[in-house]
Amino acid sequence: MRDFTQNHEWLSINTATVRKQRGVEVPLDRIIDQCAERGIRAISPWRDQVAAVGLDKVAAQLRAHGMGLSGYCRGGFFPAPDAAGLKAALDDNRRAIDEAKTLNAPCLVLVVGALPGALDGKAAYTDIARARSEVRDGIAASLDYAREVGMPLAIEPLHPMQAADRACINTLEHALDVCDELDPGQSGLLGVALDIYHVWWDPKLQQQIARAGKERLLAYHVCDWLTPTRDLLSDRGMMGDGIVELKKIRGWVEAAGFDGFSEVEIFSMLDWWKRDGGDVLDICVERHKRAV
Amino acid sequence: MRDFTQNHEWLSINTATVRKQRGVEVPLDRIIDQCAERGIRAISPWRDQVAAVGLDKVAAQLRAHGMGLSGYCRGGFFPAPDAAGLKAALDDNRRAIDEAKTLNAPCLVLVVGALPGALDGKAAYTDIARARSEVRDGIAASLDYAREVGMPLAIEPLHPMQAADRACINTLEHALDVCDELDPGQSGLLGVALDIYHVWWDPKLQQQIARAGKERLLAYHVCDWLTPTRDLLSDRGMMGDGIVELKKIRGWVEAAGFDGFSEVEIFSMLDWWKRDGGDVLDICVERHKRAV
Repeated sequence: MRDFTQNHEWLSINTATVRKQRGVEVPLDRIIDQCAERGIRAISPWRDQVAAVGLDKVAAQLRAHGMGLSGYCRGGFFPAPDAAGLKAALDDNRRAIDEAKTLNAPCLVLVVGALPGALDGKAAYTDIARARSEVRDGIAASLDYAREVGMPLAIEPLHPMQAADRACINTLEHALDVCDELDPGQSGLLGVALDIYHVWWDPKLQQQIARAGKERLLAYHVCDWLTPTRDLLSDRGMMGDGIVELKKIRGWVEAAGFDGFSEVEIFSMLDWWKRDGGDVLDICVERHKRAV
Repeated sequence: MRDFTQNHEWLSINTATVRKQRGVEVPLDRIIDQCAERGIRAISPWRDQVAAVGLDKVAAQLRAHGMGLSGYCRGGFFPAPDAAGLKAALDDNRRAIDEAKTLNAPCLVLVVGALPGALDGKAAYTDIARARSEVRDGIAASLDYAREVGMPLAIEPLHPMQAADRACINTLEHALDVCDELDPGQSGLLGVALDIYHVWWDPKLQQQIARAGKERLLAYHVCDWLTPTRDLLSDRGMMGDGIVELKKIRGWVEAAGFDGFSEVEIFSMLDWWKRDGGDVLDICVERHKRAV
């Protein structure tokens, strides 16, 4: 297992972690500078953050800093109540793949979607098997284009508490079943983004990480699970503040062959987004050494 | 599949559903009367509610009404930081089994526990594999006594969002693995309490319900999953108000041989506990006919 205690060579910052600083939305170009100032070698930005600054401008800024991506957030949200909606989702995923390519991302992360409309409290249907079928078809169609341009797709299993509204793939086992069905040859173009926040509880986690192997483990996200957790979306903890066995899980991931970045992704309306962004990044660096 | 539309013969009320009425804690004897007035044939009471009224008094009141139990809530919480704590949990589970016997319950429901102390935000340890091992040993020890007195134990898999603090058995598959290990002969004395709130999202749900079969399906709990869900514990929905495919899942459960009560269990600090208890019970009866 790699030694993380001496430097933060393998730290990446998912830019959602500092998208709000002192409660205020901060533009991506400022966040990139803040990361560069701290010698952080990689980030994973969100599409809306990139769009707000401009794709080419972000690409140029990253090149100027010699900064890479550990992933691009995000494609997915495939299910829809009708054919027009399904097609719109595929078109949007095609654009996301193109953007990921422009930014030289190692993968496009897929939050696959769930019951369409549920995020707004108005599910268009409640048949989760249908949503799962639409997700499968959406990934299959997007994979065709991803193969053409050479952009790996990383399915992110989301915590079951987000199964209704954000992603109906909720275990690593399920994500790998989809990978094996759509990409039996393990081309490297379809795999998973493993976020410990979503999967830490799974009794089959170690077994399924071993099953995934290097070919399927495209991204690795860290944060912590707090007790109590006060919100289903936005109360993630800083590494070391919760109960996730981060080092044990990283051991499993590395034993399976993963040797990429540990990407810190913290949504925290209730705490970290209220703080000074520079302080948050400094603490990410310190905790990455000590707790990841 | 049984027709529930004509009467509420197979409705049971988990008494947590109306433990607070207009925001105020209501004693169990009053709740039993409220259920009896509506021709509800069964309840599932909680130990603290029973203790507050008195075990023998509750038993006599149930007999007087000709009212049965669909389960008794609850045993479990096996993990502990030390040997004294582990023993205290076993002793407490023995008492719960005795109480269940006095009340003539068909099963004692087990919320198995997780990281000890996590419920108070102070986990004594974070090794969830250790908690799972202590849970296994605790169920094994309790099963010895349950066999002696003839009281079935029903493991309730809890939603993964409660894996840190309330129960580290979080899927039906895991619960059934434990059942198969500890009771390979399917004696009828070890099975599961299947609460749709905890398991509705599981892509393996139908398969595992079929695996469980009549011998393992000891209790069936219903409510609904709301979008959005505003609290991890106490924002359950009334049947029909959320996105769970209740009839589809009951179809699977009955196809596996289950022919018992549908027990309504709603924790709802944010809504139903604020309402008039009689109204809540009337709505349970109506929704049981229409939505379950």
